Amino acid sequence: MMQYLKTLVPVCFLAILSFSVFSQTSTNAKELKVNQERIENRIFELAKFGKVANGKGYRVAFTKGDIEGRTWFIEQMKKAGLEVTIDFTGNIIGKRKGKNASLKPIAFGSHIDMVPDGGNYDGCVGSVSGLEIMETLKEHNIVTNHPLELIVFSDEEGILTGSKALGGGFNQERLKKLSQSGLTVRDGINAIGGNADSISSVIRKKGDLSAFLELHIEQGGILEKENIQIGVVEGIVGIEHWEVTVEGFANHAGTTPMNLRNDALLSAAKLIIAINEVITSREGRQVGTVGKISAQPGAYNVVPGKVVLGLEIRDLSYDKIWELFHEIEKRAANIAASSGTTITFKNQLVAAMPALTDKSIQDKIVQAANALGFTYKHMPSGAGHDSQNMALIAPIGMIFVPSVGGISHSPKEFTSAVDMANGANVLLQTILALDKE
Amino acid sequence: MMQYLKTLVPVCFLAILSFSVFSQTSTNAKELKVNQERIENRIFELAKFGKVANGKGYRVAFTKGDIEGRTWFIEQMKKAGLEVTIDFTGNIIGKRKGKNASLKPIAFGSHIDMVPDGGNYDGCVGSVSGLEIMETLKEHNIVTNHPLELIVFSDEEGILTGSKALGGGFNQERLKKLSQSGLTVRDGINAIGGNADSISSVIRKKGDLSAFLELHIEQGGILEKENIQIGVVEGIVGIEHWEVTVEGFANHAGTTPMNLRNDALLSAAKLIIAINEVITSREGRQVGTVGKISAQPGAYNVVPGKVVLGLEIRDLSYDKIWELFHEIEKRAANIAASSGTTITFKNQLVAAMPALTDKSIQDKIVQAANALGFTYKHMPSGAGHDSQNMALIAPIGMIFVPSVGGISHSPKEFTSAVDMANGANVLLQTILALDKE
Repeated sequence: MMQYLKTLVPVCFLAILSFSVFSQTSTNAKELKVNQERIENRIFELAKFGKVANGKGYRVAFTKGDIEGRTWFIEQMKKAGLEVTIDFTGNIIGKRKGKNASLKPIAFGSHIDMVPDGGNYDGCVGSVSGLEIMETLKEHNIVTNHPLELIVFSDEEGILTGSKALGGGFNQERLKKLSQSGLTVRDGINAIGGNADSISSVIRKKGDLSAFLELHIEQGGILEKENIQIGVVEGIVGIEHWEVTVEGFANHAGTTPMNLRNDALLSAAKLIIAINEVITSREGRQVGTVGKISAQPGAYNVVPGKVVLGLEIRDLSYDKIWELFHEIEKRAANIAASSGTTITFKNQLVAAMPALTDKSIQDKIVQAANALGFTYKHMPSGAGHDSQNMALIAPIGMIFVPSVGGISHSPKEFTSAVDMANGANVLLQTILALDKE
Repeated sequence: MMQYLKTLVPVCFLAILSFSVFSQTSTNAKELKVNQERIENRIFELAKFGKVANGKGYRVAFTKGDIEGRTWFIEQMKKAGLEVTIDFTGNIIGKRKGKNASLKPIAFGSHIDMVPDGGNYDGCVGSVSGLEIMETLKEHNIVTNHPLELIVFSDEEGILTGSKALGGGFNQERLKKLSQSGLTVRDGINAIGGNADSISSVIRKKGDLSAFLELHIEQGGILEKENIQIGVVEGIVGIEHWEVTVEGFANHAGTTPMNLRNDALLSAAKLIIAINEVITSREGRQVGTVGKISAQPGAYNVVPGKVVLGLEIRDLSYDKIWELFHEIEKRAANIAASSGTTITFKNQLVAAMPALTDKSIQDKIVQAANALGFTYKHMPSGAGHDSQNMALIAPIGMIFVPSVGGISHSPKEFTSAVDMANGANVLLQTILALDKE
């Protein structure tokens, strides 16, 4: 609470300052702009919650830092004139009335929790920009036709708890899982003001929202490398994981001649290269990764008898993921046969289906970027986001802004204030365009 | 002690039986043969010491099983007429007088300790065969010109403690090391009747022994695969280890396009294949192994930023080991440059120098094998043995017999009684040939 009082002073000062600047002019909706400085300051304010002794960020869902950050955010929403509720999953929902109560709300938002030792932009840019849009509309006395909803989802970095519950994809079994906070998901939800026992009642029906929009940092290096201001997200990629087991025969590395070995690691090395070749030999933006490896028994002087790998493939097309996998299987069979090993694949049942964004919303994002004079590029989102769950109940749109160096989930994560404001302005204009329909 | 009494009965019976058979004939030294059945029975007797609850072998140096096995072996040596002493390192030394006390002893032997869950042949074949030779000589009232010594070395499978101490290569710092038994090497040596404080006094001077010979199972699959009865060991290979670090950049596997990655594991896979190519592209019996690997951070969804490998190279020529390493270094530099990673090698200071066997002893082994009608093959020993330490003070010779399936350090380790007796007869004839010099 002390922290809240300390941080409120500069924020209020800025709010008064910016209000006075804007209120002197009569702004039409197309020229409406967010307040870049206020976005940046709020990013800095939010970053203070969850700072631990060594200066690292630890606003992990359900922890003290998360709870304090949420409390501060709720206060900011109320000051922006929103009617704030916390649903049973702990999602913070800030509502602003529209002229026509019979229209389904246009919703937008993101999250403010972070991975351990994470950064200050992932999720926060979308949440703070959503708040900024609500405040900008209020300052200019603009009332949209549709009701608006700003949603700050709970526990995105854990298991996308809040958006899964809203979209209807939350498995009750997950309540028992231990979250990074040390609490079970059940206890965590209750700790942030939710009610785990009633979580199934928060599901929204298909059609309950006109649209859902999310602004997010890219978390990759493409926009920065290509010097492009806005990413028009085509969809969130699907994901499959396989545990790959290569079995040879463990043998004494001194007494087993090279030609009598069944070296599981040598076979695995060939497979890693083959996977890379299969993934990169086709057109498109699919990615394939071997991120895990272990060799048994794992000693300098023993030829490895068994190697276990982790294989991940992501793409916007679920069919393509499996086509690529089957090509890899074929290559693996050849490698196994020629190296005296066996290679088996065990699908890990991730089955994260691709979530495509709405074409007409993509077009509105492009029109907004064009009108604002920003360069843009259509691209997939390689990372998962709350939007993928919202896609189950509403047409979705996603806007990316550049991440410096493509770094994310790290204290080095950074997006410039100009880029954040650019993204927020595109989001604002997209909402206004949707509101006209 | 109960176990000793139980096992003694059949052994004594066999000893009486075989003595009576041989004593009926007047055998000249060239036709002298060991008693195959007695070797096999003693291998079975010895296997009983250190059996643990699940039936696995655990005659690890310094444990109860090791101590009981040693006690039994000492009794057997005494029954064979040997004068038995335990030196300060715990080596069991059984002496048999020669006709000429001024000649330096011909020594032979091996060890009876095993790795955890090990087999019944590694070390035991050489020790039991040495005992059998002493007994065969006694039965036939043959007194050699040279004194003979049967040495059962202590803690071979740990750090070659006994032979290192005799050869002068024992570092006192090793006394502090924890052995597999749970005791420090110091406490272990004391537990088997040695005296760790006086260990440095057991060193033998160069020339104190006429020769040292060791019969051992091959621990590889070459003799069995090629259907050869006797391996004439050219030397024990030298060994070097390197810790190899491949550094790239850890990145989100979903958001980092394939062409913007610095994947340490992909680079490591190329290096593993290059190592295999370098080792196998040259003539000779060198071996190179990557037996260890770890990738960081090690998750399905993160491009590995760092991979650490363990590289081992063995060869009879120490220069060749380093030549091969420098070729690998060159290949690594190319892989690093083309994949945006760095690859560094840290030598682990193993510096196990090759120990070559004496050429004239090799010739005597060949002559013995020929005289006995056995097929033979010159070969390196890829594994380390007590002989490599004895090579520092005496000309050495080593005889290999086939290991079924090349399996060793495993309960599945097996060498047939015929092959053991073949090896023992070659050892006996080699000793007798050396004795004539």
